Amino acid sequence: MSDVIAQLAAIVGEHNVILGEEQTPFLTDWLGKYRGRALAVVRPGSVDEVSAVMALCAEWNVPVVPQGGNTSLSGGATPDRTGEAVLLSLARMNRVRAVDPVGNTITVDAGVVLANVHTAASTADRFFPLSLGAEGSCTIGGNLAANAGGVAVLRYGTMRELTLGLEVVLSDGRVWDGLTALRKDNTGYALRDLFIGSEGTLGVITGAVLKLFPVPRARATAFVAVQDVNAALALLSIVRARGGDRLTAFEFMTGDTIALILKHVSGTRLPLETLPPAAVLMELSDTDDEVALIGRLEEVLASTIESGLVLDGALAQDGTQSKAFWRIREGVSEALVREGMAAKHDVSVPTAALGAFVALADAGVKAALPGVRPIVFGHLGDGNLHYNLLPPVGLDQGRWTAEMPALTRLGPVVT
Amino acid sequence: MSDVIAQLAAIVGEHNVILGEEQTPFLTDWLGKYRGRALAVVRPGSVDEVSAVMALCAEWNVPVVPQGGNTSLSGGATPDRTGEAVLLSLARMNRVRAVDPVGNTITVDAGVVLANVHTAASTADRFFPLSLGAEGSCTIGGNLAANAGGVAVLRYGTMRELTLGLEVVLSDGRVWDGLTALRKDNTGYALRDLFIGSEGTLGVITGAVLKLFPVPRARATAFVAVQDVNAALALLSIVRARGGDRLTAFEFMTGDTIALILKHVSGTRLPLETLPPAAVLMELSDTDDEVALIGRLEEVLASTIESGLVLDGALAQDGTQSKAFWRIREGVSEALVREGMAAKHDVSVPTAALGAFVALADAGVKAALPGVRPIVFGHLGDGNLHYNLLPPVGLDQGRWTAEMPALTRLGPVVT
Repeated sequence: MSDVIAQLAAIVGEHNVILGEEQTPFLTDWLGKYRGRALAVVRPGSVDEVSAVMALCAEWNVPVVPQGGNTSLSGGATPDRTGEAVLLSLARMNRVRAVDPVGNTITVDAGVVLANVHTAASTADRFFPLSLGAEGSCTIGGNLAANAGGVAVLRYGTMRELTLGLEVVLSDGRVWDGLTALRKDNTGYALRDLFIGSEGTLGVITGAVLKLFPVPRARATAFVAVQDVNAALALLSIVRARGGDRLTAFEFMTGDTIALILKHVSGTRLPLETLPPAAVLMELSDTDDEVALIGRLEEVLASTIESGLVLDGALAQDGTQSKAFWRIREGVSEALVREGMAAKHDVSVPTAALGAFVALADAGVKAALPGVRPIVFGHLGDGNLHYNLLPPVGLDQGRWTAEMPALTRLGPVVT
Repeated sequence: MSDVIAQLAAIVGEHNVILGEEQTPFLTDWLGKYRGRALAVVRPGSVDEVSAVMALCAEWNVPVVPQGGNTSLSGGATPDRTGEAVLLSLARMNRVRAVDPVGNTITVDAGVVLANVHTAASTADRFFPLSLGAEGSCTIGGNLAANAGGVAVLRYGTMRELTLGLEVVLSDGRVWDGLTALRKDNTGYALRDLFIGSEGTLGVITGAVLKLFPVPRARATAFVAVQDVNAALALLSIVRARGGDRLTAFEFMTGDTIALILKHVSGTRLPLETLPPAAVLMELSDTDDEVALIGRLEEVLASTIESGLVLDGALAQDGTQSKAFWRIREGVSEALVREGMAAKHDVSVPTAALGAFVALADAGVKAALPGVRPIVFGHLGDGNLHYNLLPPVGLDQGRWTAEMPALTRLGPVVT
């Protein structure tokens, strides 16, 4: 195996092959739930180096685990415990290759951090809409591998919809050049979409052409209390009919989720009088005319409070308040980590069946393990819910780890 | 072969197997450019029948050409001249299976005519955005097979972006059930996207779940004169920054294209004083407040006329005028058919390179065949242009047919 390591070092340079203790940060996932081992952590700096590494590993039959910002919550970027795999970190490939404000595209290396794509777009007076809690660390390659959604998916879609072209290194080292900037590309089969969402199993994404959008200069944000998922869905229907494409975020959280965030995340404060059974953080955005936009959201709130659908609500009066509302939603992962180890489920259900799903899941897990604490939140408009379970208070760690798989398998099928 | 025909009849019923002269409408493409022959035209009425037909044809090694509304302009739905293929018409599978206004989805048979999807959506107070000239005849299956774009692709994307799930019968008769209504479906590989745009080569699409949107109740439409493609692109950038998502159509036409339409399509009238070198039909739409929307478009027009970018412009004062503007754009296919046989090219180029493409292509074809008439129009915001060539006036048909392939091969490569 030292032969392989020597050859890897010949490709990427000795200081870009990491061995021993220094590997640790690459081998543990963000939640600390998964820990692996690796033959070597390899940090290529170019497509050619990735290609040579892949060809070498194919020749030696060495497994490769690609990794971007290592912010995965499901162990997708963590190697197994055999220590046989090469951990391929794309973090050094962090170049914004080009920004085209006429064609509204940005071309980037896979290792560019999402927040840096935001900055590059913004410098060209354009907007890249993918936004999620880990955006300061996660990379475009990981966003593509996971087909990330994030908080603006309701309006802009997932990474698949935000991508025009890809550059991928296949397992034998060949480079698949699909780095097109065409808005409509009907030549041949849509192989691009096979790589997006394939979690690195079909190849290593090394570059991408992404879509840019006009900058949304006006925002209106509200934090409102509702009874449950079904009330939130009814509200969504009303806001969507009234706001149309302006509705860019509609984030649902149960009261238990909010309580957990307020407990653990510093600087968060409930913008309502009392802890509600559930809440929605919603945002409208537009290219201009913030006054009209806020007025529009105010009207919707007034009429839905009137009708009893919304129990209470707060409208952000400025950017600072809006950020404070968002800090609640963005604090959820941190709050979960601080509270303990959650059984995590990222669930997609047809929107109309979300209420039934939550009711069935809650009943099922609580019957199976009394005291278990569902922490439920997510991008409601997409039918995408994070259905997490925390152990009953006081349950010991060993027992909880043993219970988790059975609880996960209880997930109801709702169509 | 009569065995095959008998077995086909046993599957779909004798009156749904068409032989002899009655096949003619199925065997000629819409432009009359392609003519084929078929063993039989078969009209299944259900997924099971499609499945049985495909299995039978696989067994007998009989080629199958799927056909929807037979509005293809490129011969994609016309069998070859051998007469060996079965022409599989999906036209009888024309059922809207379900409309879900909460989940914002519609589930349809592949043979449903696009305009009927519009109607079904509209009945549920929702909107399905794919819109193109042939919408009264073309079917969803064909729209999917071609990954159709249409006039609203700038805002809503192509059929790929408008589709959640598919049902496909594979070549051996197996049914691939991907009829999911999930907004975010990251389970497994995105096989769905392989079928979309595959022109029927990977299977026969029999059903689809499509996305619905809030109804755009307000529209503002303008028809404006510009110098050329580059001026149109500069205008697009301004309108997009100001209008954001409201910009739903931005259709470019050269002056020659407009002249051809005015000549051939009854009821069309130029809304400008003089025939411009080029024009753009643009439309903003919104969920409400038409007065504000029209005001916004008026401002953009005033400032761009002031700056000299827009040479002249007309703003629709009501729905009737807006329809009259659209009638010009929608008349282009009819005008082309009436004028003669065009060499047609549906071209995608990175948006920023469109001006260079048109200049190079015009120069190339005119040098190769003096008097040749480029008829250029398309969805500029998507980098998608229809670059058609009409023969020099007076050139005989045989010579034109002989010249066409060489002209097509002149297409410049611009990146």
